[in-house]
Parts: sequence; structure tokens; C-alpha cells
Amino acid sequence: MKMEGISISRQPFPNSKKIYVSGKLHNLKVAMREIQLKEGYPSFVLYDTSGPYTDPEVEIDLERGLPKLRESWLDARGDTEWVEEGGRRFRRACRGGVVTQLHYARKGVITPEMEYVAIRENQCLEEMRERLGELAKVHGGVSFGANLPKEGITPEFVRQEIAAGRAILPSNVNHPELEPMIIGRNFRVKINANLGNSAVRSSIEEEVEKAVWACRWGADTVMDLSTGSEIAKTREWILRNCPVPVGTVPIYEALEKVGGVVEELSWEVYRQTLIEQARQGVDYFTIHAGVLLRYIPLTAGRLTGIVSRGGSIMAKWCLAHHKENFLYTHFREICEIMREYDVAFSLGDGLRPGSIADANDRAQFAELETLGELTKIAWEHGVQVMVEGPGHIPMQLIRENMEKQLEICHGAPFYTLGPLTTDIAPGYDHISSAIGAAMIGWYGCAMLCYVTPKEHLGLPDREDVKQGVMAYRIAAHAADLAKGHPAAQLWDNVLSLARFEFRWRDQFHLALDPYTAQAYHDETLPAEGAKVAHFCSMCGPKFCSMKITQELWEYAKKKGMDPEEARELGLEEKAEEFVRSGGKIYSPKTVDKG
Amino acid sequence: MKMEGISISRQPFPNSKKIYVSGKLHNLKVAMREIQLKEGYPSFVLYDTSGPYTDPEVEIDLERGLPKLRESWLDARGDTEWVEEGGRRFRRACRGGVVTQLHYARKGVITPEMEYVAIRENQCLEEMRERLGELAKVHGGVSFGANLPKEGITPEFVRQEIAAGRAILPSNVNHPELEPMIIGRNFRVKINANLGNSAVRSSIEEEVEKAVWACRWGADTVMDLSTGSEIAKTREWILRNCPVPVGTVPIYEALEKVGGVVEELSWEVYRQTLIEQARQGVDYFTIHAGVLLRYIPLTAGRLTGIVSRGGSIMAKWCLAHHKENFLYTHFREICEIMREYDVAFSLGDGLRPGSIADANDRAQFAELETLGELTKIAWEHGVQVMVEGPGHIPMQLIRENMEKQLEICHGAPFYTLGPLTTDIAPGYDHISSAIGAAMIGWYGCAMLCYVTPKEHLGLPDREDVKQGVMAYRIAAHAADLAKGHPAAQLWDNVLSLARFEFRWRDQFHLALDPYTAQAYHDETLPAEGAKVAHFCSMCGPKFCSMKITQELWEYAKKKGMDPEEARELGLEEKAEEFVRSGGKIYSPKTVDKG
Repeated sequence: MKMEGISISRQPFPNSKKIYVSGKLHNLKVAMREIQLKEGYPSFVLYDTSGPYTDPEVEIDLERGLPKLRESWLDARGDTEWVEEGGRRFRRACRGGVVTQLHYARKGVITPEMEYVAIRENQCLEEMRERLGELAKVHGGVSFGANLPKEGITPEFVRQEIAAGRAILPSNVNHPELEPMIIGRNFRVKINANLGNSAVRSSIEEEVEKAVWACRWGADTVMDLSTGSEIAKTREWILRNCPVPVGTVPIYEALEKVGGVVEELSWEVYRQTLIEQARQGVDYFTIHAGVLLRYIPLTAGRLTGIVSRGGSIMAKWCLAHHKENFLYTHFREICEIMREYDVAFSLGDGLRPGSIADANDRAQFAELETLGELTKIAWEHGVQVMVEGPGHIPMQLIRENMEKQLEICHGAPFYTLGPLTTDIAPGYDHISSAIGAAMIGWYGCAMLCYVTPKEHLGLPDREDVKQGVMAYRIAAHAADLAKGHPAAQLWDNVLSLARFEFRWRDQFHLALDPYTAQAYHDETLPAEGAKVAHFCSMCGPKFCSMKITQELWEYAKKKGMDPEEARELGLEEKAEEFVRSGGKIYSPKTVDKG
Repeated sequence: MKMEGISISRQPFPNSKKIYVSGKLHNLKVAMREIQLKEGYPSFVLYDTSGPYTDPEVEIDLERGLPKLRESWLDARGDTEWVEEGGRRFRRACRGGVVTQLHYARKGVITPEMEYVAIRENQCLEEMRERLGELAKVHGGVSFGANLPKEGITPEFVRQEIAAGRAILPSNVNHPELEPMIIGRNFRVKINANLGNSAVRSSIEEEVEKAVWACRWGADTVMDLSTGSEIAKTREWILRNCPVPVGTVPIYEALEKVGGVVEELSWEVYRQTLIEQARQGVDYFTIHAGVLLRYIPLTAGRLTGIVSRGGSIMAKWCLAHHKENFLYTHFREICEIMREYDVAFSLGDGLRPGSIADANDRAQFAELETLGELTKIAWEHGVQVMVEGPGHIPMQLIRENMEKQLEICHGAPFYTLGPLTTDIAPGYDHISSAIGAAMIGWYGCAMLCYVTPKEHLGLPDREDVKQGVMAYRIAAHAADLAKGHPAAQLWDNVLSLARFEFRWRDQFHLALDPYTAQAYHDETLPAEGAKVAHFCSMCGPKFCSMKITQELWEYAKKKGMDPEEARELGLEEKAEEFVRSGGKIYSPKTVDKG
């Protein structure tokens, strides 16, 4: 395993450093990103998916892989054993047991993984509230986030959500490198970035850097969708060097094994592939077990037929053999394999609509019924489950998707691709789908699979991956705000105050993408002095509304006006006289600068 | 007026030509864009905002300006007279009369402008339905578009909507160059692109090309927000060469006239400015008449104060003079000026929120109450009105904005800036705001003011303008789909079928941005052969779901399966036997290729 000419992105974000928050129940340290602001302003802490790469203290050696964060936790649990088979050494449940986070949660055990995600989700909420005072106040009006714990997320809350099947914590015992994260609607909305070379393009080296790169910008999980000949090797490199859970669609590798001839797929080939990937450390499998033979005719009236790769493969297999989908008929055996390694299900929506015309049709919802049935079977076996969703859906039909999924799949987390809200914009589908993604995230979708600008056109490159992740972090954060995630709005408030106070550098450093924010500003005003100027090139010095507002406040202050009284008088007709009386002050809302 | 070194974008879109549809009531020709598809497929007609620039038959001479499309209609109405004053020759209502489209609509008159927009909005709907057959079927499930006429838009419907104040047709009698368009929630959702140099950057030449460029990509109106010293000259060039309505914020020019000193603004300076701009041909004015003295204290508790340029200027003026806003106290006089030229109001929301923290607060809604009051006064004077809206609003608070505006402003069209659904993404605010824009468009917002990637950071350049327009055309179209605009989904269906049938060139030509779609595809598969290949570089030949689906259909066809029977059997358990029996066919939905 040699990797040449690869340059892994390691630069910490501007003015940021990695901090580690200690656990209370377990001996663990949760990585976060702390942004230093202008002197006198408290630093700000962000959720951080970039992994050890952005910590200059950590030595990175791609050949050795990332530090094995979870190794000691796995050892301590003592319910897995080391096995050597087929040239690989791997962990497996002792005596065919169950080693899933769902299993522990049901038994009332709070694992280190669970404590890790509780601390991580909280983003130092209490300390931030203390530091930021009035700025920490958030909007009411939450409509879909009624179950979010307003006072911060506790390890016990995490355990309960996993035990109830409302959240999953994907963490294969053979992927000790990952930093635990949770997927569930009562947590931060997560995003997934798809990677993977196709037969036509890209190299292993590119794919590893793409994974690190996607995590750097905010991917919470990555899926390796490679379909070339070096599929297992690519995956190995990604797994050993990836700080987030990795998902795959095992049917792709199975198909490679039979030379790409769908008809020659078999349960035995698939089963072998599943076991190999589980032993390698894949954290979740997309399995299209809901594409039943009897549903295939339902796609006949569609404009764009079957657009899921896995779905079309299974449909073709079913039809060719005149047999029921072997993923469905062998589903219990699949569960038995997955629970030995704690691989989670991502129940694939092989019949998702591929165009606005096909949205919410019978084929789609018929498959969803089967996914609901399979969810229960997986739970019976102690296996964690999330359910995949579409696809292409016009706005007015999005909510029905979320509601049906929650009802039919008994509250298991939903994981959707977009959805794209129109078909007319190839080249811009990160945008057409970010609209749908934000909406379904608000309605309760737990994870959003990104779409890049290259969707429908070609394989995304590094820049496309970044653009896709950016659009989806925006959608996910907008959803967190709308759901009322307790830590979400702090970020907006801190950034907006920096903007209002013309702390340009703080505004850049707090931005989702600090580099682009600064580059765009500097394009027209590159001088150092512009970083403290009370305007930008958009409106120029005379027409800056924020500058004028501050002058207005200065003016009122000089006259000694009081903001509280001003506010009370507010809508009263007397305000005019009151202002005339010139006895009060305004002042902008500020943070404690101590 | 000499313009050097300017290069105006004139290239017709690939495989597209300009067509002209004749009126039935009036002698007029409505420009549209027709896209030629692969031989055997009917061509497709799109709404076209690009103006005469994309018609190679039209000679363009920037110094002379665009052909005066409306000149003969204005002459024929005979209610305006030519006046020479202050070195300018202009049209004005005879004897201080009313020459607004609202006035005509109330009298029951269908003007050429009204017939033009009816034909334009229809996009050849009936003919398209005939050409496209089954493809023309659209989704049900419309929730906010109940009042859209399913059978296409008639001139009489246009008249009624204008008469009721639910729509405006901005068309100054001194802007005969514009191609009429309508802004109202029972029509296609429109988008506006802001242009204008600031004191810091950009030239007149750049601004004219930016206007043409914005229209080329889909801007339905442009606003000239110039604030430099050559403000009147810039506007003149834009007006004479702009095929869409032009809006301004006259307080900017008034402020230039008093040397940028807010305190020195006066009704007289403002009035003069209004008159000059009305005579020049500006189609709508943003007027911040709702920023009342008593509302200013309500902004004291805000995180980001007042973020509207016009709003902050008026607030400062009010406070400095301890007087009520002169735009409010002189509102009836403003109406009397505007109705003589048919300038429409865009009632400015000077107190819109500039951050998530300030959304839907008392200041914002207090001002809205006043805008509702002013709407009625404008209508009394026969002046057309739309109302501006925010701004920065988290998703869960967007709908309240639309509902309040409809109720408080008596159904007048709403025109919002975004809204941005989070503050954290400077550099990507075209995306964070496209999410909010799509949603509020669906809820009933009539026009969406674009936001470019440079928002909050600097003045947008050409590429930023394009990115902003693209994001907003996506948002507007997604809203049209969701509202159920009768012509909207045809586009998606035609493009998706091209995608499914691997008609790559047709897919590119039908794309919102044909150039980018093709460039992205060709980046990895530049060969000519790839344009007919049944795959792209994303999945490669073996894993293309659409290819596999087609193979599946081929297979089923060979076996002689019938789609109708297959569909009926659908969910029945018997489907399995049925497929086994091998007696039917599938076939993808196709258009009439005759």
C-alpha cells in the first residue's frame, strides 16, 4: 500500500485551534474547533468534522492510518474477539453475539461512543451561553423540533434515542479511527458526501484526499461508491484515514466480482462481499432490499424509470430470474452478519423518483412499506437502521415524504438525497437540491446526502465536492435553526454581531468558508485598512446602512436616550414627543467583552 | 453619450431561436425562445427575458437604444402628451390625468401591455400540450396555487388581477423599450437583479452590460442602485437599452444631490428627483415611506439595527430633525407624480431584519402595518403597488411573513429579498437565500430579489450577477412547480425525458444554463462519441441506472409484456406469477415523435 504524489489538506482554519473536551463518564476527549476573535471578545466553539488533520500536533501517516480513538473502548467492552481469516485480522462479536450500539442502549449502557456524541452535539452550549450572554438567546417559533432538549444534549438522552431506534450511531468495531457521531432527528442535521471513482475516471489517491477534503468542509459521513477494479483497495485507504463513518453499497462490489453481469449476481457472492466489507470496517451498508419483484411493474408508467443504481441492478436481477430480490429473501441472514460488527442499515430506496414527474408515486411508496417492515426485522436482530429517501420532489410534496417515512418506518432516521426541487438545472443541482434538503431537514430528516454541481453530468472533482458540502452545510444549518437545535443560532448571532460592528476579520473567521469570504471581500478592497473600514465595496462609505445605524446610535447616545424607555414607548404615539425630549439613549446589543 | 470598449452579450442560446407570437386583440408580437431538439422531437418554447439582444435579426445600437416596442400603443391611447422641460422631452399624462395600467384595468380596458403578458405567461401552453401529449401532464398536490388558471392565462384574467391590485404591470410611459411583464402571485414567479456602481467601484459600461447580462440569464426586472456621481447618466444608458422594467431607490440620488449629508435631505430635493426619474422612464420606485419616527426606537434592541440603506437614511433624517418621515407626510403628492407617468410603488421595508436574531420582530411588522395603509392610499390614486419584504428569516418564520403581508397589505404583490435562511455563509448567500426565496415564492411571493455570492462582502461582478440570477431562477421555477403554474412542469418533463433517453445534446440545450451543463459533462468526457453514449463519467457504463432500466425494458419488451396490464396488477401479489408468465411489455413514456 504505497501512495505517491498525494497532498493531504491539513491547514487549520484561520484563527482556529483544535480543543478537546473531556468526558465525565468515560476517559475520552472530544475534538472541537475554537475560533479566536478580536481581543476583548470571547472565542467561539464549533462542531468539527475535520478530524485530526487540522490539529498540527497530530502526526499523520497515511500508511499507518489515523490514531485508533476507539480501540481502548472496544477492548474494555470485552465482547469482541480478534480473528484472522483470509489474510485479514479483524474484530468480531464473541460467539455470534450482538455488539451494536442499539444493543447496548437497550440494555441501559451509555457507551463511550454515546458520551462522545452527547458532548460533541452540545458544542459547549452551557459555557457558550455564559460567555455570550444576551447573544445566546434564540428564536421561538420552533415547529418541528418540539422534542429537542432545550437545555443541551445529555449522554442519557443519546442512549434513549438510540434505544428507541430514533437515532443511529454508526460505528463498526473494525473502524476504530472514527470520531463518533449520531444520526437522528433530535440532533444536529447531518450531511453525507459521496465519493468514489468510476470506471471512467479518478484514482485512489484522489479519493482519499477527497474524503479528507469533504470532512474538512463539513461532511459528517462519506459514502465510498467506487465501482472500478480497485474497489477494495480504495476502500481500505479511505477507512484507515477517515475520521467519519463510511458507508458503501455492497452490491457494486458484488457486481464487479461477477464481471458486471447482473444476471450472475447471487446471494453467495453478495454475502461474501458483505462479510469482507464488515471486516474491513464499513460503518453502514446501503441495501436495496425493498425492490420487490411485484413493484417493478409500477415503474412502467414512469418518465425516468428506475434511477437508483442499486435499484436498477436488483430490478434487472429479479426480472431476469423471475425471482424475488435475494436481499429481501435473505434479510435475516444479513442482519446476523451486521450485528456481529455493528454495521448499520441504510435501507436503500431503489425505486426513488428520478424526476419531478415521478415524485411520490405508487412505486416509491410501495417500496417504503417494505422498508418499514424490514426496519422492524433489523431491530429484532439488534441492528441499527436508517431509511433512504428521494430524490426529485417538488416542494409541495416534500412534507408528505417525511410524514409517511416517520409513520411507516416507525420513527427510524430518514436519510434523503436532496431532494431536488426541479429538473431544469443540470450544473446547479447542488442549489436545486439544497432547497429541498433544507426543507426536509426542518421537517425531521436526520441526514442529507449531498448533490454536487456535477450531478447528472459527470464525476465530481475536488472543487465540486467542496461546493456540494457547502450547499449542504447551509441546508443542514438552516434546518437546525428552524428545528430549534439549542446550539445552532449562537453561530448566526455571533457572526451577525461581527458584521454589524465591522469586525471584518471576525466575520471571515466565523464564516462557513473563511477563505472564500475573505477572498470575495478583498477582490475589490484588498488594502489592510479595509479590514477595519466601516463599509465595503457594495455600498461604499456613504451608503452603508450599518454605518448609518451606528451614527444614528451615536447621535442618540449623545442626546442621552435610554433604550429601555424607548422600547417601552415603542408603538405609542408619544414616541415622537419622547424623542424630542432628548432624554434617553440607544445602544447596540453587545456581548460581555470581559 | 459615448460608450467605448463595451462588448454586449448577443449570442443566441445554443440551438435556440427567437420566435414571435402574435396578439389577437392588438397588433403585437410577443418574443419567446424556441429550442430545437433532436430530429423527430418537437421543439420546446421557453419564456424569454433576454430581449432583442438574442435575435440576430435585430440591429443593436446602444447610442440609439432598443426599438421602442410600446411607442405606437402609447400614441394610440392618446392620453399622454409630449412635454419639453429641463433639456428633456418626455411623455406625461394630459391635464394631470391617470395613465396607469391599474386605471385602465379598473375601467375594463385590456391594454396591449396586458395582452402581451397574457401571451408571454402562457408560453404557448396549448400548443405545447398538443405537441407533448402525455408529457404535458403535471402533478397535483398544489397547495398555494389554487387561484392559478389551469387552462392558461387570458388577457381578461390579467386585467382582473391588475384591477384587484393583486398584480402590477410596471411600465412607465417613458420606457417604451420594455417588453411588458407582470408581477403577481397568480403568475410566473419573477426575479429581480440589483445592479449599480458604488462610489468605490465599477463603470457605466460595466453596468449596462451587467443589465443585458442579467436579462440574458433570466432577470425579469433590474434595479439600478447606483450611488456614484454619474448616477443619472448610468440610469439613462440602462433605461434606453434595457428590455425589462427598471426600478430605482430615488433617495440615493437625492442624497447625492445634498452631498451625502442625510440631515440636508428635504422633500423638495426628493420631489425633484422623483420627477426627473419618472420622466427618464423608471418603472418602479422603492420608497421607504413606512419608516416612521415612532418605529425607530423599536430597532434599539436589535442585533443588527437597520440594514436597509434607504431605511437607515430615513431613520437618521427623522431623528436628526425630530420630524416624521417626509416620504410619509408627502405620500399623496408622491402618488400624484407617479400616476402621471405610471411609475409603480415598491413600498420599501426600511426596517427589515438583517439577521436571524431580528426576524419577525415588532419593528418589522409595525412598518408593515404602515405599508398596508399606504397601499390603500396609492390605490385611491390609481397607482400600482407592490410591497417589499425581508431579508434574513429562519425557515420556520417565513410563512408568517407571507400571510401577514397578504392580510395587512390587502393582497398587493409581495417582493422579498431572499430571505436568507442563515447568517453563517458569507460567500454563499445566493444559496442560503435561494432556500428562503423558493419557499416564500411557493407561499405566494410574486417577485424575488436576488442575492449574489458577494452579498455582505462587496460589489458583484458579471460572474456574481450570473450566479445570483441562476440561483434565483431555480428558486422561482421550484416555486412555480409547487404553486402549480400550468406551464412550469413541462420544462422539467421535457428535460428529464431527454436525460432518460441519453439525448445529451437535448439535455444541454434544455438546461437553465446550457453552457455550464455541457462544459461539466465534457470536462471528463469531451469526445464527440460521449454525446450519444448511454452513460456519463459519474457511474461509468456498467453502473448507469438509466441504462440498466432501459435494458430492463428492452428485456421485458422482448418477452412481450404489456405496461397497462403490468400497472393494473401492480401491487397485487399476483404480479410475480404475471411476470413469470412472460406475456407483456414495458415501454418508457415517450412523446409523439411525429
